[in-house]
Amino acid sequence: MSAESNVVLALDVVRARDPEIHAFVATRDQAIEDARAVDLRASDLPLAGLPIAVKDIYDVAGMPTRCGSEVTPPEPATQSAACVQRLEELGAVVIGKTVTTEFAYFTPGPTHNPAAPGHTPGGSSSGSAAAVAAEMVPLAVGSQTAGSTTRPASFCGVAGMVFAQGSVDLRGQRPLAPSLDCLGLFAATVADLQRYVSAYSDLPPGTAAQRVLVWTPAEDSVDPQMTAAVARAAEIFRSNGLSVEPLHADRDLAILTRDHALVLAYEARRALGSVYDAHRSRLGTALVELLDAGGRITAADYEKALARRADLREKFARLLGPDTVVLGPAALGPPPAGLDSTGSPALSRPWHQLGLPVVCVPGARTDDGRPLGVQLIGRAGDEAMLLETGVSLGVGLTRG
Amino acid sequence: MSAESNVVLALDVVRARDPEIHAFVATRDQAIEDARAVDLRASDLPLAGLPIAVKDIYDVAGMPTRCGSEVTPPEPATQSAACVQRLEELGAVVIGKTVTTEFAYFTPGPTHNPAAPGHTPGGSSSGSAAAVAAEMVPLAVGSQTAGSTTRPASFCGVAGMVFAQGSVDLRGQRPLAPSLDCLGLFAATVADLQRYVSAYSDLPPGTAAQRVLVWTPAEDSVDPQMTAAVARAAEIFRSNGLSVEPLHADRDLAILTRDHALVLAYEARRALGSVYDAHRSRLGTALVELLDAGGRITAADYEKALARRADLREKFARLLGPDTVVLGPAALGPPPAGLDSTGSPALSRPWHQLGLPVVCVPGARTDDGRPLGVQLIGRAGDEAMLLETGVSLGVGLTRG
Repeated sequence: MSAESNVVLALDVVRARDPEIHAFVATRDQAIEDARAVDLRASDLPLAGLPIAVKDIYDVAGMPTRCGSEVTPPEPATQSAACVQRLEELGAVVIGKTVTTEFAYFTPGPTHNPAAPGHTPGGSSSGSAAAVAAEMVPLAVGSQTAGSTTRPASFCGVAGMVFAQGSVDLRGQRPLAPSLDCLGLFAATVADLQRYVSAYSDLPPGTAAQRVLVWTPAEDSVDPQMTAAVARAAEIFRSNGLSVEPLHADRDLAILTRDHALVLAYEARRALGSVYDAHRSRLGTALVELLDAGGRITAADYEKALARRADLREKFARLLGPDTVVLGPAALGPPPAGLDSTGSPALSRPWHQLGLPVVCVPGARTDDGRPLGVQLIGRAGDEAMLLETGVSLGVGLTRG
Repeated sequence: MSAESNVVLALDVVRARDPEIHAFVATRDQAIEDARAVDLRASDLPLAGLPIAVKDIYDVAGMPTRCGSEVTPPEPATQSAACVQRLEELGAVVIGKTVTTEFAYFTPGPTHNPAAPGHTPGGSSSGSAAAVAAEMVPLAVGSQTAGSTTRPASFCGVAGMVFAQGSVDLRGQRPLAPSLDCLGLFAATVADLQRYVSAYSDLPPGTAAQRVLVWTPAEDSVDPQMTAAVARAAEIFRSNGLSVEPLHADRDLAILTRDHALVLAYEARRALGSVYDAHRSRLGTALVELLDAGGRITAADYEKALARRADLREKFARLLGPDTVVLGPAALGPPPAGLDSTGSPALSRPWHQLGLPVVCVPGARTDDGRPLGVQLIGRAGDEAMLLETGVSLGVGLTRG
């Protein structure tokens, strides 16, 4: 199929479904012309003619970057973000921009969850996860600063990849907390995600993990159905011949969780300082509270949190090694009812503070059919292994 | 001295000197208020109250980012670039934005060379190097995609640091060639630079190199006085007890030089594609030629260049090791006469293709007093060693 017909079809699907889902903030007229250029140029590119959607915190040339906020300037961007350029270079065609929560924090946009009507799609990459879940695009770009990829992937029943911190060029992405902001991608299955991420990062073929450390969060608020989904995933790994052991790291993970919130608030206050100063009254309550809190944190406390993070990164790198993944719940449970909140990122915080790559594997469901995702975490640099492990699990979970 | 008086003084110096030098595109009214905030906040920050200037390819909240081109939008940026935020977090105060060549490529701006009147300051970070050379600011932010930091540092007689590719967050920097674009910093001496970079990157104290590989470029166009400056630097290292040997890598460096030009053109055409499509007739000849050339390079040739780069990165990492630096000329010679061109980046291309960190050491001069810089190149991750080596050399070169 030509890039042009792919893109025309995707835009038709968006027109048909998005009035209900509200995953997109805008579609892109230029997309069909871009697709024609791909058809003329090369059909052997790895993502040739793939329609993609981009979270509205990344620049796409010719479109404004609104970050889910009316205080951002309406002028179109001149250049596309580095990740958009990379995907276009691989043959992908941007068909539109997707809903983000306000500045990629907590205040929700209008997006519905295609996999659980009446329930939140999660956030902050709400639109990108929903666009993939509703089969409007096969690949969508998101981001993660706390749990903004793992949580919507889990809630919408799609696969998600959080890239390791510092591993990709984030130019053209609006910062929320610079040392924590990461690229995220969504696809329907881990096998699709593996194909896209391998092309994006030029990964060699990977071998699946040999050892799994199962994380049972100390929090008593994990939904029993989520706990059951993780147990089923562990069982699949065991029956595939992997060594499965419990992870013992509660104390470190508690430190990381607390420090993550501190680092996020401190950095967000600096990253969004001028927005705060100019437009405080036009920002959502959650964001104002974050930025207020960030203003009260001392530089000394922030530096201490960074030092602890550096130590714990080394510790976890030793703990994990090249053949081990951590398996845990990607969210506290299935998507909560209503669109007023996007759920909790609590189970992403400690891992995201470490800056490790994460693959979110869909397939499990609650009794009433709502999605439950599990997350796999590995070392930075071991993405090929992580994805291959995710593929082997995804097949089992979907069948089960 | 308070941050406020530092900043007031720096702005006075800019007002007095810049009408002749033209290093700045704009100064920043907000700077004095920012300085007062630093004075209220903390005096123990490592860069407390340091006035800095930022190349006009980085966003500074409240100022437009014009990239040395009239085709860029005049609207002010909402958020500052990540590196600007980092420097502000350390206590620095942005007093203004500096001249860049057109989109950080070759078409010069109006900047004069304070260290060699009538001669080019080099480019593309012309204004930042000149602002430091004219003692308008102690620290200025630049960038490098080919030789945009080493060359102006060498021509203006200041110290320059090129950060390793991928080692810092470049958000808020306008891309020219995404895989090559780097952060650069300028300071009066390597000792100052060491202080600033150590704070920026949170570096541990470094030990100087034990071994120096002296690079004598195969090109016959290196000025004999530059060759003499490198020989003197080698002699200083030898008398300091370091092992000094010739570098034998001409064939690899020739491949890297050629591939660098190819990668730059290919990526620039993609990074500036929308600018090219919309405004071709309003771009400078050098940039149009680059983007035209980039459009003729095939994806296959580009991919081959990336593969060669990956192989050679490994090879040079083995060659260098943690205690070795390469010493070579930072430019072909002293700054050429006139302001119509910014000189050649030829001697940066191979090293920049490898993405290695570089310290440019000032101190040498031609008979007629024009600056001659030498460059030291090390492995990514060994920046503390590289800077300490630069400090030991800088002291000798300046005395000699």
